Amino acid sequence: MSLLIRSSSFVSHLTLFQPRNSKSSSFTNQISFVSSFNHNPFLNLVYKRNPIMQSVSKMIVKSSLIDPDGGELVELIVPESEIGAKKAESETMPKVKLTKIDLEWVHVISEGWASPLKGFMREDEYLQSLHFNSLRLKNGTFVNMSLPIVLAIDDETKEQIGSSQNVALVCPQGDIIGSLRSVEIYKHNKEERIARTWGTTSPGLPYVEEYISPSGNWLIGGDLEVFKPIKYNDGLDHYRLSPKQLREEFDNRQADAVFAFQLRNPVHNGHALLMNDTRKRLLEMGYKNPILLLHPLGGFTKADDVPLDVRMEQHSKVLEDGVLDPKTTIVSIFPSPMHYAGPTEVQWHAKARINAGANFYIVGRDPAGMGHPTEKRDLYDPDHGKKVLSMAPGLEKLNILPFRVAAYDTIEKKMAFFDPSRAKEFLFISGTKMRTYARTGENPPDGFMCPSGWNVLVKYYESLQESEAKQQAVVSA
Amino acid sequence: MSLLIRSSSFVSHLTLFQPRNSKSSSFTNQISFVSSFNHNPFLNLVYKRNPIMQSVSKMIVKSSLIDPDGGELVELIVPESEIGAKKAESETMPKVKLTKIDLEWVHVISEGWASPLKGFMREDEYLQSLHFNSLRLKNGTFVNMSLPIVLAIDDETKEQIGSSQNVALVCPQGDIIGSLRSVEIYKHNKEERIARTWGTTSPGLPYVEEYISPSGNWLIGGDLEVFKPIKYNDGLDHYRLSPKQLREEFDNRQADAVFAFQLRNPVHNGHALLMNDTRKRLLEMGYKNPILLLHPLGGFTKADDVPLDVRMEQHSKVLEDGVLDPKTTIVSIFPSPMHYAGPTEVQWHAKARINAGANFYIVGRDPAGMGHPTEKRDLYDPDHGKKVLSMAPGLEKLNILPFRVAAYDTIEKKMAFFDPSRAKEFLFISGTKMRTYARTGENPPDGFMCPSGWNVLVKYYESLQESEAKQQAVVSA
Repeated sequence: MSLLIRSSSFVSHLTLFQPRNSKSSSFTNQISFVSSFNHNPFLNLVYKRNPIMQSVSKMIVKSSLIDPDGGELVELIVPESEIGAKKAESETMPKVKLTKIDLEWVHVISEGWASPLKGFMREDEYLQSLHFNSLRLKNGTFVNMSLPIVLAIDDETKEQIGSSQNVALVCPQGDIIGSLRSVEIYKHNKEERIARTWGTTSPGLPYVEEYISPSGNWLIGGDLEVFKPIKYNDGLDHYRLSPKQLREEFDNRQADAVFAFQLRNPVHNGHALLMNDTRKRLLEMGYKNPILLLHPLGGFTKADDVPLDVRMEQHSKVLEDGVLDPKTTIVSIFPSPMHYAGPTEVQWHAKARINAGANFYIVGRDPAGMGHPTEKRDLYDPDHGKKVLSMAPGLEKLNILPFRVAAYDTIEKKMAFFDPSRAKEFLFISGTKMRTYARTGENPPDGFMCPSGWNVLVKYYESLQESEAKQQAVVSA
Repeated sequence: MSLLIRSSSFVSHLTLFQPRNSKSSSFTNQISFVSSFNHNPFLNLVYKRNPIMQSVSKMIVKSSLIDPDGGELVELIVPESEIGAKKAESETMPKVKLTKIDLEWVHVISEGWASPLKGFMREDEYLQSLHFNSLRLKNGTFVNMSLPIVLAIDDETKEQIGSSQNVALVCPQGDIIGSLRSVEIYKHNKEERIARTWGTTSPGLPYVEEYISPSGNWLIGGDLEVFKPIKYNDGLDHYRLSPKQLREEFDNRQADAVFAFQLRNPVHNGHALLMNDTRKRLLEMGYKNPILLLHPLGGFTKADDVPLDVRMEQHSKVLEDGVLDPKTTIVSIFPSPMHYAGPTEVQWHAKARINAGANFYIVGRDPAGMGHPTEKRDLYDPDHGKKVLSMAPGLEKLNILPFRVAAYDTIEKKMAFFDPSRAKEFLFISGTKMRTYARTGENPPDGFMCPSGWNVLVKYYESLQESEAKQQAVVSA
């Protein structure tokens, strides 16, 4: 059978209830199918492995999840009944052409990951984000907002807009996908934006080179509306659950704690150890049904990161192999692009997961970090991410779970929490090291990653080398 | 007669009361003299001009001034009775040699301008300042703290300190002036500090070149104690009233509103127009006795700014000439060094004045700004300062008074608020333009500045040219 997840905004009929008196207790559930659902095999896995769950006993679930920032989850998708009129109206508006990364941000904003943000930032929001990493709400409270979520336009587009109040947003393929209303145009001081976001202006920052440097000298803010949910038609859309869909799924599973794990790399057994250990601790704390949100980042990443489709395949193997328990794990794609902005970005990663219902956030060494682009050192102090996160305005309600470093225990032949008293017996396998293994066809030590997951990486790097060889052949010829 | 201001921490006996039913109402006061007081001629002026004030009618004043940040004004000067023991103890501690600017910060912290900060920042305070421009207090509220107030040490000093808990602070002249206790040493990532504070890493930032670039690779935080109030023996110490002394003076004058004006330039009639206009508005708002804190910055400034002693002389002429009313004006020196960090620094300028009792803060175009060091433009958007200030966490209780631009009205032949409808009739005289007038001996238009104040500047630039000529003669010879 297959289990389908609702992509509309109506009441969910998919309800699972897991009475917890032991880790392996049985499930009761209530499922009904809505034909427009997408198909997420990670959710499917749960039901494949737990046929008992298909017995139906109706239950109304009142959500006990953490409130979204600002109290209400933002959703900016035009109601079906208004789409015709809105589309016709948008044809008459000045057009703003979106880049691929702009579209990722439209996706992020329209689904409410950045709640209570209702569109691309106007200047007052931009300045608060840049200077304070937070936005003050009308009631005087703060929500976290560490990355400027802005839309750049060039001089020509600015001139075309003139004094128009509203603009139409045109996706890279040429369709109008929505509009920005009551717009405000202000200067895009790239140097200042980069310096305050990354704490450096060195050349070689991936997001800057890909996106900011080529962008226009103006920013346009306003209220966003999109005609329909953003889809990429890349075979992965069914993994892209919105915050609302995730909340419904957590409620359906009667989660009393949701712990999120952000990643942009393949899952190795060190990650798994950490996630499983977190669950164990939450149970010890008295939670009955903690659910893991394994939440790989799906937007822009730098060229040498493992591509999303390969990572998703690798993650599926990790769940199929039982390294993570599909009963208590939801795998979904986080649609944000990656900044590699360390302590500034980790706040965004955490804040967005509040909106998806997570009340626990796992943070490790050097989150969202990378090597300094021009110096031989980490760009950020590896401890600053978790420190900044633990002090960030607007994240008080989120439980930050800093984790101990996992490394390969050469005696026990498995990934384990690093024990400084026998440091020499541990092997640290960095992302770079892991990629080198896969690229050269060398196997990592036994127990580093489940073999089927590792195989996905090996195949990817083989195909990469083949295509590189072909390209070189073309260049030579 | 002369009126002396208390520099000790005992109850003030200097009490002025101004019953307000008109702008020029008479004063009653109660004055007693304490011989250890310093002498501030600007305060003196008030009494010279208002002999009626010397009639004595005793009055107990309950302060209605704005609370200092954190609720209590920090003062870190060792009580007289403990100085001997503390000094002896400090001799045994590892020594940290202070630069001139470090000493200015010791001054600032020890008098409570940075309340509730009790010493140079430890890492958690540094990170909050850098990322959030604010510090979270234990009760969950925020105070503003936009500039990292940190003390850098080099590798050698770090090694000498080792695992010592406390260090002695040695002023540039060689004396131990106090100590830093329960110290924490952490990395000084200069690039990140500069990028996040200034929004640029361009070469040519005065504070960076003078102070940060030559400094060590470590920061040391801890609790500060100084043996006695910091003095500079430059003939200007009597102008350096601490926040406590200023609060007492405001109470003595029965201020029901205090409006602060930060400046690092000579006062021209445009500034005066603005300050007088502010006072008028505060009276219209129902305040009975608004007092102006004219508060020139006294710490490090860039080489081409007018030096402090010249500015103080110029300010005294402005008050003597009656351009500002000495009855309702207190002139005092703000001991902070200047960062020229625009929107980030203006928050510090405002926050520090809360601690001195100001509940209104005047902000103009491009506060704490300067030209971009390598590009032909302002470093900051001239409007960002007031915008950022109005949204800054921890400054909610401060009333921000953004001001209209004043310019020289060529028809009325005086400084006036700029009227865009007759823009051509206005002349903008920038700081650079003003300095050029003074340097070349050319007079600015009538009504730009009071003649006696202008004369101070002309003399300064004449003396500068003489000494430059002499230096050149020496070089040639």
